[in-house]
Amino acid sequence: MNIFVACELGSSEKIIFQNNLKKHNLYFSNQVFNKIADNNFLRCEIVFGNIPPNWLVQSSKLKWIQLESTGFGEYSKLRKNFLKKDVIITNLKSFSASQVAQTALAGLLSFYRGTDLFALLKKEKKWVGDPIRNKLEILNNKKVLFFGKGSINKEVSKYLKPFDCKCSFIDSHSTKEYILKKLRSAEIIICALPGTKRTKILFNKKMLDTFSKHSILVNVGRGDLIDENHLIEKLKNKTLRGAVLDVTSEEPLQKNSKLWNCPNLIRTQHTGGGYTNEIIDKVYFFLDNFKRYSKNTSLLNLINPSKGY
Amino acid sequence: MNIFVACELGSSEKIIFQNNLKKHNLYFSNQVFNKIADNNFLRCEIVFGNIPPNWLVQSSKLKWIQLESTGFGEYSKLRKNFLKKDVIITNLKSFSASQVAQTALAGLLSFYRGTDLFALLKKEKKWVGDPIRNKLEILNNKKVLFFGKGSINKEVSKYLKPFDCKCSFIDSHSTKEYILKKLRSAEIIICALPGTKRTKILFNKKMLDTFSKHSILVNVGRGDLIDENHLIEKLKNKTLRGAVLDVTSEEPLQKNSKLWNCPNLIRTQHTGGGYTNEIIDKVYFFLDNFKRYSKNTSLLNLINPSKGY
Repeated sequence: MNIFVACELGSSEKIIFQNNLKKHNLYFSNQVFNKIADNNFLRCEIVFGNIPPNWLVQSSKLKWIQLESTGFGEYSKLRKNFLKKDVIITNLKSFSASQVAQTALAGLLSFYRGTDLFALLKKEKKWVGDPIRNKLEILNNKKVLFFGKGSINKEVSKYLKPFDCKCSFIDSHSTKEYILKKLRSAEIIICALPGTKRTKILFNKKMLDTFSKHSILVNVGRGDLIDENHLIEKLKNKTLRGAVLDVTSEEPLQKNSKLWNCPNLIRTQHTGGGYTNEIIDKVYFFLDNFKRYSKNTSLLNLINPSKGY
Repeated sequence: MNIFVACELGSSEKIIFQNNLKKHNLYFSNQVFNKIADNNFLRCEIVFGNIPPNWLVQSSKLKWIQLESTGFGEYSKLRKNFLKKDVIITNLKSFSASQVAQTALAGLLSFYRGTDLFALLKKEKKWVGDPIRNKLEILNNKKVLFFGKGSINKEVSKYLKPFDCKCSFIDSHSTKEYILKKLRSAEIIICALPGTKRTKILFNKKMLDTFSKHSILVNVGRGDLIDENHLIEKLKNKTLRGAVLDVTSEEPLQKNSKLWNCPNLIRTQHTGGGYTNEIIDKVYFFLDNFKRYSKNTSLLNLINPSKGY
């Protein structure tokens, strides 16, 4: 079979990939993604990695794409084409859950134990010490409201068990009344929702204004879930304690973005899913799914395009 | 009874303190601690808070000191005097365990998820993103070596349960061979030992050189447990992944301290025990112990001066 590798592999990952697929023709992307699809791509029935959405409509051979991400919002507009051509898409859902959940926990603890502040004080060679003590907090007994019941939030809630936090979950069946009631008392709000039409700017001005001013918002979902301008305003005027954003509407952030100067904000530059063995584990995931594809058995992490997740 | 309050209380804590001790004479310290003991102090049989060690030998009335700290190394040289005069000392052992343990976890996650680095990048308005991903780590399955079996380390190990870390503990009965063997493979070393003659510079050059270069050392014990100069050298030449120090030999750190410029080091400025309700909870702890003292029942957290903890 012809396989196009859009995913950027290191030399050692490439060797493992090649050794496991000796009988197949592999076309490694040159990582230049123009509007007109790469000729090598057009030869392939299988793709490993995220290609530009508009390439999909240019191919007559494509049968399966294994994305190297959990999110696939950029492909959702092409839904009809997928269905017409019976293109199968699989993603890396759950693959990044532990990593992202630990970034969320790291962000929360940065606020509560001041490590973010101490990093800046170290840079300035400034000792403050004692006056910081009574501004610190502990996770114990905090009321935590999760948006989404997926693998990331399940993982975070597992980590919070030893702290006896009171965890509540919001999903697509939650009523507006229930959400608002829970939001008012929540001390920590963790959002790991996918990007769909229903979730776009879910955290609008009205929702954000419902938050307690002592609460911290963590977004490890998608960048377009939040009215960022209003969030910035709230962080500046201290009507919100803090925010941890792994994702933002603009990435990379431009120099003139207001988010750089925004106080009480921790940005993790969309690295939440990262870890030392990320690429090699992605390769193994693909190889595992490829075996299933070859045997004509059902693939792992098949996306449901009509639902958007 | 005459009670001297060396602990610095806020106005609301002072009111609670006074309301609960109306029948007694309270002498609040002016927070000036000269070599010659305060006259008010000399009138008192009870002290709440940490007074200068040399004041102790000047008092003929002192019977009980409730320290506002867990550590009491500064008083250990005066041991003989304590015994002669039957002065009882109680500390705040275990009082700070959750807070300190969460500072330890915050420091570890700062390294593993990059939040320390992201704080500095935000200040510089610098987007790095993807290249950081494969440098990040997760806590799962890490080999963790604890020095000390006290409340802080028990708390940290409880927090690490969801990550399936492999936890081992070193205490005063551990053999040197066992310690060295465990140190070689440990990925995280957490030290919460008290300051005693036996623990002074326990982490000397030889010990530090046994550490794996991928390991992170967390010290939430005492500042004199580590050969700091050698630690700095190891962090600079990357023969140690990182260190989280809540305590250091010098506090506050002077501007010329080498620790300010030391890379891969997180300093939390001895705030590990801090949290919003710290002072008021200290007051309640004292009041609880005072009730016991008045009833002539055994006090909580009595220090054993001959052991140093």
